[in-house]
Amino acid sequence: MANQYVDLRTLKFLLYKVHNVQEILELERYAEYDKESIEMLLNSVKDFSDKELFPYFREMDEKPAYYKNGEIVVHPQVNKYMKAAGEMGIIAGSFTYEEGGMQLPQMALHASVFIQEAANNNLPGYVGLTVGSAELITHFGNKELNRIYVPKMLEGIWGGTMCLTEPQAGSSLSDILTSATPDGDSYKINGQKIFISGGDYQGAENIVHLVLARIKGAPAGTKGISLFVVPKKRPTVEGGLARNDVTTVADFQKMGQRGYCTTHLFFGDNDDCIGWLVGEPHQGLKYMFLMMNGARIGVGRGAAAIATAAYQASLNYANERPQGRKLTSTGKKNANESQTLIINHADVRRMLFLQKAISEGSLSLILLAAKYHDISLASTNKEEREKYKLLLEIMTPVVKTYPSEMGRVAVDNGVQVLGGYGFCSDYILQQYLRDIRIFALYEGTTGIQSQDLLGRKISMNNGKALKLVLAEIKNTIEASLEYESLVPYANKLTDKLELTQEVLKSLMGFTMKGDFERFLADATPFMEFFSNILIGWLWLDIAKVAQNAIETENKENHPDFYKSKIHTMQFYFKYELPKTTGLAEILMDNKQALTIGTDKEVFI
Amino acid sequence: MANQYVDLRTLKFLLYKVHNVQEILELERYAEYDKESIEMLLNSVKDFSDKELFPYFREMDEKPAYYKNGEIVVHPQVNKYMKAAGEMGIIAGSFTYEEGGMQLPQMALHASVFIQEAANNNLPGYVGLTVGSAELITHFGNKELNRIYVPKMLEGIWGGTMCLTEPQAGSSLSDILTSATPDGDSYKINGQKIFISGGDYQGAENIVHLVLARIKGAPAGTKGISLFVVPKKRPTVEGGLARNDVTTVADFQKMGQRGYCTTHLFFGDNDDCIGWLVGEPHQGLKYMFLMMNGARIGVGRGAAAIATAAYQASLNYANERPQGRKLTSTGKKNANESQTLIINHADVRRMLFLQKAISEGSLSLILLAAKYHDISLASTNKEEREKYKLLLEIMTPVVKTYPSEMGRVAVDNGVQVLGGYGFCSDYILQQYLRDIRIFALYEGTTGIQSQDLLGRKISMNNGKALKLVLAEIKNTIEASLEYESLVPYANKLTDKLELTQEVLKSLMGFTMKGDFERFLADATPFMEFFSNILIGWLWLDIAKVAQNAIETENKENHPDFYKSKIHTMQFYFKYELPKTTGLAEILMDNKQALTIGTDKEVFI
Repeated sequence: MANQYVDLRTLKFLLYKVHNVQEILELERYAEYDKESIEMLLNSVKDFSDKELFPYFREMDEKPAYYKNGEIVVHPQVNKYMKAAGEMGIIAGSFTYEEGGMQLPQMALHASVFIQEAANNNLPGYVGLTVGSAELITHFGNKELNRIYVPKMLEGIWGGTMCLTEPQAGSSLSDILTSATPDGDSYKINGQKIFISGGDYQGAENIVHLVLARIKGAPAGTKGISLFVVPKKRPTVEGGLARNDVTTVADFQKMGQRGYCTTHLFFGDNDDCIGWLVGEPHQGLKYMFLMMNGARIGVGRGAAAIATAAYQASLNYANERPQGRKLTSTGKKNANESQTLIINHADVRRMLFLQKAISEGSLSLILLAAKYHDISLASTNKEEREKYKLLLEIMTPVVKTYPSEMGRVAVDNGVQVLGGYGFCSDYILQQYLRDIRIFALYEGTTGIQSQDLLGRKISMNNGKALKLVLAEIKNTIEASLEYESLVPYANKLTDKLELTQEVLKSLMGFTMKGDFERFLADATPFMEFFSNILIGWLWLDIAKVAQNAIETENKENHPDFYKSKIHTMQFYFKYELPKTTGLAEILMDNKQALTIGTDKEVFI
Repeated sequence: MANQYVDLRTLKFLLYKVHNVQEILELERYAEYDKESIEMLLNSVKDFSDKELFPYFREMDEKPAYYKNGEIVVHPQVNKYMKAAGEMGIIAGSFTYEEGGMQLPQMALHASVFIQEAANNNLPGYVGLTVGSAELITHFGNKELNRIYVPKMLEGIWGGTMCLTEPQAGSSLSDILTSATPDGDSYKINGQKIFISGGDYQGAENIVHLVLARIKGAPAGTKGISLFVVPKKRPTVEGGLARNDVTTVADFQKMGQRGYCTTHLFFGDNDDCIGWLVGEPHQGLKYMFLMMNGARIGVGRGAAAIATAAYQASLNYANERPQGRKLTSTGKKNANESQTLIINHADVRRMLFLQKAISEGSLSLILLAAKYHDISLASTNKEEREKYKLLLEIMTPVVKTYPSEMGRVAVDNGVQVLGGYGFCSDYILQQYLRDIRIFALYEGTTGIQSQDLLGRKISMNNGKALKLVLAEIKNTIEASLEYESLVPYANKLTDKLELTQEVLKSLMGFTMKGDFERFLADATPFMEFFSNILIGWLWLDIAKVAQNAIETENKENHPDFYKSKIHTMQFYFKYELPKTTGLAEILMDNKQALTIGTDKEVFI
């Protein structure tokens, strides 16, 4: 199997040319980096992924992680990868120099994890959760917690997890029951958590759980939730490790990501589970959600990476498989002709373009969000930081959702390109299809993201975030109008912005009347509508940069490379963007609220 | 796990009331049947499915069929089911009395297989292929072949298969290479076939392969293909069985339908494989395609059955799972309230309605096609036979495709209803999602069905089939206009018929210019457009019957049952039908043929 799971040229083109990472590198925070060092990083991550990730992808699916005698048995590559990632600085990448990190720009970081996830999406999660939980400690934990836990985590010797979900609560975090009882300087933790990714694995020296729990007597709902560090093994004063009454009671076997373990944990079953409070009491959910933007972008990135790898695999197949013939000018086929490659059939090309449009559009979206994140972190101008923070806020639910939902459609088309072989385990497409299914569920389902977008983000700060994103789109439209060949597309996008205003005006009518349930009832179709237009914007932006490269005879890539980007934009505008016409019709149909009620009989 | 994998009330309502099976029972061919005997049949098949199919569904996935020492090891239930199906007359159902069958109406037959497939889609295929291959023998084979093979097949003692696909040809049957060399009264067969469902299984006394092959010297392409009976074991003159040099060399492991074996067969590896010609030389493909309508309806039915079972499973979950709260009139949630069932959340209801609309719409489509089949088989009026044959012809690609494509979307939404649990192997939804993926590939992929629809069926007999189906739709519209509450929906459908004409006119422009490749390039979006409207028609028809039942105070079902059908129609018209607006925009965008060419560079 070829190692062609990612197209580095496109990644670099998007990073350097379309999203201009150089602008970020001029910020003081990233002073030690330049284009060359970013280039070196990406190339070395690609080499690393070729050797340590891609070769184990299939095997991790065929021999999934499993529960045995209170432990989770994982593929041996998990520990090898964690340690290598620690040594290479992959885990420490995003942390500041003071925190022991590399202070990498988010753009470079996301690009490098994207490569790893395209190579093998079953492994980077172990690192990702270790990063996320270490970040919670560095941002909100005291010095002692930082000293004890963070270095070992950044080295990849200790793993980390995020423990939110409980069986009775699911997405409804206000209903979590895990309790924390003060006990001297620390707390006794009691409760259970499910769906804990990377929650335990044989060979890890220790696992550091970041656990949401209620301190006894805390207020009901989300305002009474605190955050605790609860290690599997307690570091002792002597520098050793002692057991901490965290028990792995089961795992979840899944239809995909079978090498990435998912566990069910009990805390304090023998009343001997100690946890240490992170930050202030009752602020746990706030802390968690300050990290959640990063986690949600990470989910979108993982889905984009799978869609990319699947596209490469089906493109490769379509370029090698002869089958059937093209129609002759009489409308018939000539059986005496030799067979053509399937890439020459229009319907196969349609599916490949769809895959390309979705996967590259998704990657562009991830990098844009990362850029917003970088500016909001590192700009010296407060207003600018605020502006990009708002842009990041409104984009985050889309960044999480579009690649997860449409990436699944892309991979599904990738399976179809292979015909019957696509369904067979001997080909990798079916694994991508099974793996990507979880992304629309991770870290807030599509329904929850859609409600976040329509119910919170669109109207936040009196609609300022929305105004900012619309202004960004208008900037791209204006810049595109400079290129004659792009004028029709720029105009089409302008129409879609007007349509967006109409749709929102129609929906806002319900909030005026105080009918919030009705307002949010169609949040998911709205997400589909809005994200489709945002991706149209990003494709116009790509086409604009490509057209400029052609006109200025830029030699960094072959002219065909730039033409292919423009062609894919045209494909998107012809085959994807028009779907928003039907979606707007759905969203502006105000007659009946067919999905609202507590009326079971409608399903009889 | 509850046995609620199918809603018999809806099945019977569609069969008796919407599609009026009684009309069929008046035909001479079906004189021995009445509504009561059909009712008994369906109830006994449901009992049988409860006992012999549903309990093994999960197990057959967990312990998939596999290849070992030249044989395929399958779940023991395969042989038990085959024999029970033989004894119950399930295999012989569609055959005439003279052929040793039960001469069941197609409508009853499809309804009864639908129940079985909803219970366990991994088993009925073994019977389905035995039926299909036995039908080829009864329709086209000589008396000797009929005498030797058919009775054992109808009893379920011998299995049957259809051997079309070869590795180098895939969907392009004109490229098959398997050869047949005359050898006395029979032929020596040499070649290999892949993707042979039910191609071999431990415990079957014999397997009768219906094999497409070329007689030495036959013309190239599809005109040189003949059909042969090639048994795994040759019946001897003494009434025994002797080896026939058919070798199972491997199986295909798959992402779904893992209990339904898929094999790779070699014929004549030791030059001792005998086959018997069915019918005339070089007519094999014609024979195969005369049976193909049935097979394609069967594929659509299987997908509709999986979508139905998945809907029942997620509806059941949504009715039992408490999680989260509804918004109060202030737009906030009250954490002190107890949790609500998830079926009360609008977004969950949207997903359930989508599942219901697709699965019941698909079932209605299957039964309608079966009715067309029955009339075209059994009417004493030649013109009527011709009319319904044309209707069946134009509907067949839609019947195959809509449930396979949109059924997958339905099941995918079913997974989403369960949240993270949907992805876990402990819940059945993920199995339905994996199983249904093959249906868009079976018996001609969606791309091939779409080309059949747009390239052949729409224009066949100077567009007569299309005119007939449009007339049927107009009949439903007119009848619906009698009910005041249905007028807006009837009018909306009328608009969509006009839109269909516009779209076709625009597309036909390319055939006028002789640009057949461009004409067919968007066949798949056209399929999506056209089938969406047909399902809208079928929902209007259902609503009309339900509305009539309400107005006439029909007591066969609770009034809520009828209201729920009308509500689902309204849901379909609000959330599904408007998609055709965007699709029409795509189909009428004539500017550029972005998917045509032999230009690899566009994917760079």
